[in-house]
Formats: sequence, structure tokens, C-alpha cells
Amino acid sequence: MIMSNDFMKCAISEAKLSGGDIPVGCAIVCGNEIIAKAHNEREKNNDISAHAEVVALKMAAEKFNNWRLENCSLYVTLEPCPMCAWAILNSRVKEVYFGSYDLKYGAFGSKINLGEISDAKTKIFGGIMENECNALLKEYFLRLRK
Amino acid sequence: MIMSNDFMKCAISEAKLSGGDIPVGCAIVCGNEIIAKAHNEREKNNDISAHAEVVALKMAAEKFNNWRLENCSLYVTLEPCPMCAWAILNSRVKEVYFGSYDLKYGAFGSKINLGEISDAKTKIFGGIMENECNALLKEYFLRLRK
Repeated sequence: MIMSNDFMKCAISEAKLSGGDIPVGCAIVCGNEIIAKAHNEREKNNDISAHAEVVALKMAAEKFNNWRLENCSLYVTLEPCPMCAWAILNSRVKEVYFGSYDLKYGAFGSKINLGEISDAKTKIFGGIMENECNALLKEYFLRLRK
Repeated sequence: MIMSNDFMKCAISEAKLSGGDIPVGCAIVCGNEIIAKAHNEREKNNDISAHAEVVALKMAAEKFNNWRLENCSLYVTLEPCPMCAWAILNSRVKEVYFGSYDLKYGAFGSKINLGEISDAKTKIFGGIMENECNALLKEYFLRLRK
């Protein structure tokens, strides 16, 4: 599978649907087709686990009737937190492409690297369309401060 | 709030409902009342996030209409994985009591300690009714090998 900015663009569009939540969007791709896309719904759904990645993983699992997603790639606008990183690794997704680095809680290398303690062979790539992804967060926090 | 083996016994009973899944049970307690109890449903529900802890956190959040659980304690038969540990820390649960240590994936000190990178003030206690909790896993893996 080849990395494509089109899929990150889809994740960015999703992020913009996060409403009052921190804008994070995710797209899961299988065979060049987007099979799941989701955004952060923690506040909206009052669900601690409803980060974009977990919601998208659940949608993809439903589609395939299998939570193992060996043939899929996952695109997400922000480096996953430890909760999401572990869910992603356990889903056996083939590749992860994330946009912004999260120096405070990023669990794919920025703060810690959960890949190091997992048996998963998932490959991780960061900084994809980083400026566009950073802009999402910058706008959100600017709005929040007003 | 005072730790009570009764709550861990409830978590152990829940673990026994896990069916084909690895037996893990969880109980969330608020003011000496069990407000949520759940078991591992990952395989049954085809949901990567349906570990006992996440399911219980969601039930408790629904009950209070709030995913912040500052006044609650969480009992779980096995040391949480990184996914669950981060969900627990983010929920701001006051105390966590776990039974068995998980040397391979335990994220409250055995393999890594996510408490170290979180802002949460959650206190963690391991080895509660450890023998009984270990027995659950031992029986399961013995059955699996047969």
C-alpha cells in the first residue's frame, strides 16, 4: 500500500467535525479504499474511549466482522495517545501515518514508544501534512482562549 | 474510601463471565456502592476496546453522565494494559486496585508505568487477592491448551 496525502486530507476533514472536542480525525484505508473515518467524540458521547482512532477501529472491525486489521493503514491527524496507540497496535494495522507530533502524550515516539513493548509489526510514520494538522490544533486552542 | 476485598470478589465473579475471552473482570465503586461491573468482551463484541476496564468506565460515565470519575475506585483482576491504563488515568479515578501482575504488558509498573507520564493523581495498588486472580488466568490457559 502506498501512502497518500488524500487519505490524510480525509482525516483532516473528519477532524473538523469534532465540534467542542479537540479536533482529531482518523481514516482507515484498505486496498486504496477508505473503509472507516471518524473524529474525536469524547465529550459529545461522554465516552472516555471515543477518540477518533478507537471509533474508526471499531467501525472497521464492524465492516470486516473482525477486529484484526492486518491489511489496513491508519491515518490520523495527531500522534496517538497511549490508549489509542495500544488499540492500534493490537488491531495489527499494517501502517500508521500521523500528522502532528504530541510531545506531551504521544505514544509513537514523542513521549514514549509503545511500539517497543508490543509484538505488532506496525510501521509508524509521523509528520505527514504536519503544517495542516498543526493548524487544526492551533485554531482550536486560539478559539478556546477567546 | 477503604479498599475492600468484597469489591475484588465482585471483579473476580465478573471475570468468570468472559467466556472465550481471557478472563478479566472489573468493578467501579463510588461511596461503598458498586456502580459498574464488566468483563472482557473483546471477542464476543468484536471490539478492540472492549476490555473489562473500558466497558466499566463507560458504564460508570453513563450512570453519572460524566466520564470524569474523581470520586471512584476501580478494581480489576489483572494489571491494565496500556490502552486501559490510559483510559483509567484520563477518567481521574481516585484509586486502582489490581490483582495479578502482568509482566508482559502491565502498564502500572510491571512492564511500563504510564502513571509517570500522566497528570492524574490516581493511586495504584497491585497484588490484591493475587492468588485468586492468578488462578483465573491459570485455569483459562490450561483449558486453552487442552
